[in-house]
Amino acid sequence: MERTQVGIIGAGPAGLLLSHLLALAGVESVVVELRSREHCEQRQRAGLLEHGTVATLRAAGLAGRLDAQSVEHGGIYLQYAGERHHLDFRDLVDRTVTIYAQTEIVKDLIAARLAAGQRLDFSVSATAVSDLDGPRPVLRYVDASGAARAIACDVIAGCDGFHGISRAAVPDVVAYERVYPFSWLGIIADVAPSTDELIYAHHPDGFALHSIRTPHVSRLYLQVPADDAIEAWSDERIWENLQRRFALPGWTLREGPVREKAITPMRSFVSSPMRHGRLFLAGDAAHIVPPTGAKGLNLAVSDVALLAPALIAWLRDGDPSLADAYPAAALRRVWRATHFSWWMTRMLHPLPGDPFTTQLQLAQLRYVTTSRPAATTLAENYTGVAPA
Amino acid sequence: MERTQVGIIGAGPAGLLLSHLLALAGVESVVVELRSREHCEQRQRAGLLEHGTVATLRAAGLAGRLDAQSVEHGGIYLQYAGERHHLDFRDLVDRTVTIYAQTEIVKDLIAARLAAGQRLDFSVSATAVSDLDGPRPVLRYVDASGAARAIACDVIAGCDGFHGISRAAVPDVVAYERVYPFSWLGIIADVAPSTDELIYAHHPDGFALHSIRTPHVSRLYLQVPADDAIEAWSDERIWENLQRRFALPGWTLREGPVREKAITPMRSFVSSPMRHGRLFLAGDAAHIVPPTGAKGLNLAVSDVALLAPALIAWLRDGDPSLADAYPAAALRRVWRATHFSWWMTRMLHPLPGDPFTTQLQLAQLRYVTTSRPAATTLAENYTGVAPA
Repeated sequence: MERTQVGIIGAGPAGLLLSHLLALAGVESVVVELRSREHCEQRQRAGLLEHGTVATLRAAGLAGRLDAQSVEHGGIYLQYAGERHHLDFRDLVDRTVTIYAQTEIVKDLIAARLAAGQRLDFSVSATAVSDLDGPRPVLRYVDASGAARAIACDVIAGCDGFHGISRAAVPDVVAYERVYPFSWLGIIADVAPSTDELIYAHHPDGFALHSIRTPHVSRLYLQVPADDAIEAWSDERIWENLQRRFALPGWTLREGPVREKAITPMRSFVSSPMRHGRLFLAGDAAHIVPPTGAKGLNLAVSDVALLAPALIAWLRDGDPSLADAYPAAALRRVWRATHFSWWMTRMLHPLPGDPFTTQLQLAQLRYVTTSRPAATTLAENYTGVAPA
Repeated sequence: MERTQVGIIGAGPAGLLLSHLLALAGVESVVVELRSREHCEQRQRAGLLEHGTVATLRAAGLAGRLDAQSVEHGGIYLQYAGERHHLDFRDLVDRTVTIYAQTEIVKDLIAARLAAGQRLDFSVSATAVSDLDGPRPVLRYVDASGAARAIACDVIAGCDGFHGISRAAVPDVVAYERVYPFSWLGIIADVAPSTDELIYAHHPDGFALHSIRTPHVSRLYLQVPADDAIEAWSDERIWENLQRRFALPGWTLREGPVREKAITPMRSFVSSPMRHGRLFLAGDAAHIVPPTGAKGLNLAVSDVALLAPALIAWLRDGDPSLADAYPAAALRRVWRATHFSWWMTRMLHPLPGDPFTTQLQLAQLRYVTTSRPAATTLAENYTGVAPA
């Protein structure tokens, strides 16, 4: 049977970053991934990095393209009741966020791993784990050529996302879940953004978000009913709704060709514990947040920023204490981000037929944009400096 | 027909304080009240005054007994997950709150009004209002002796609480409402409080609050199912539940004779507009909050603190601008307090069968007790200095 120190399931940001950080400390790993490299490098996800996420990537030598191509944002706009207010993160918490797409981070991580000659098996199938309670857990899969593989590991890291196999291998897992009664319709449009920083807009028709991908590419979202089909949303209807929800005297929303569009359901999900025996979970395999607070990618990175030193201390130095502390330490951060994402989501999405909630949201938005302590709570969570 | 400048329906804190403030400026009023004086002076309500409420009472010369008998509190305790944390309002917002029972304020106001020889009709019936759109609205009622009365007024103030007749006289009123799936069982016990400041406790069995009435009288509350009957709660069962929910190593909850006990449903309610023609609403007649944030009495006082100068400017000085601005100005404060009361309520009451919400609450409590900005948002709302 083959051997490695850490078998890593999933070549998303969590798995790839973990393998990179382990390699920097001389800990060997194998990464296996169901999808093709092309698929991993092209799927569109988040693109807003906390200060700590950038610091982690930079410390790992992964920020070459990021530093050259990313854009720093010092705040966001909150729009409601026909008013647009700016929250200044530099003033409030002396921090910023960075716009750089997750898909670019994945490209950077894959390139770094392959350049170092490390093993990364794409397009595998039939991934399975066993012997998690013993000293030598086994990672099995069928590789792209159809050959069955079995790798004896010291530790297995489940970084295989919400639909992966890892979470199911934790017995007695407790799942905490909330499904929201609305979805986000997201588009990527080939048009220069109409704003210098993100606009979160509360409108009687529903929430809208103007995000930014590059100086020439805009990312825009609309709250839509949870059961809507993308076919019901022509480009014309999408722009018409975006124009109405963002409307502000003296400001214009530029339109352009819609390159991609998709509807994403909104869910909060936390599973516990994040460890069983020698299996550790990180990222979406253990938790999902609605995208409102842009926490998904950042949580995956903060999980790995805890897990990598824990595994290094254990496997290289023989000290298991950080690995033992990982589930509780990670969950505390996860619940902070889960609460913040729920809080942002609840503040910004009006519910049809619930005018009380709409008025609460308007009162809350008024408060967040007029009270410095309230604005600071948003800023410290959004930029990732809140105590967890 | 009799005449007065302001006909006031209801001899609760709102109506009595309004009549007192008007009299100080030479504006005449008549107060009518369904209940007897004894009933008004004995019913047990809230007892926590914001800084601004105390300032209003003091400026009106009503704080003699209050200053002698009240106790100043510089914070509260938040208890969860077996830990008790102190929030220090003096440190966070340089403000305090004052413990003095609403029933004592009512006694002070009635005494002041009667000492000044002003008209206050208790035990009336068949109260009705008419001609609200004209220059001379009419207040009709049957007095305690059975005589039918009709008073032509310049303005009528509806201060007659949630179940009063005033709100129904506003055509096209819009009501925003939330009924919570739990109630508070409250007791008054003849025992010295076991705490120097209020304890808000989150426990898997439900919320509990240790409040303070006097140095010798405790006020304690338990979250109970919305449909529970008081008969199901023996004194023994109440103390057993209080002991369990407040339990903390090294701390003891003193027990004593239960003098009163009652179950109160929890509701958020806001009606709009707060004015129609020459009828103005104030206090519970226009809005109800759950008691968690102790805002009900304080909102009634802040309504009146806006309404009294508005009516004085109009009726004495001929300037209607403040009266015109009253509905929007009052509602903005009302929605701030409504949001805060909802926020406190949602943070502290676990819901059976909803473990996700319980975990969110614990994450939020952890945040409020470890982040200074988050603690400050609670403190500025609780003490009443948040922007409205």
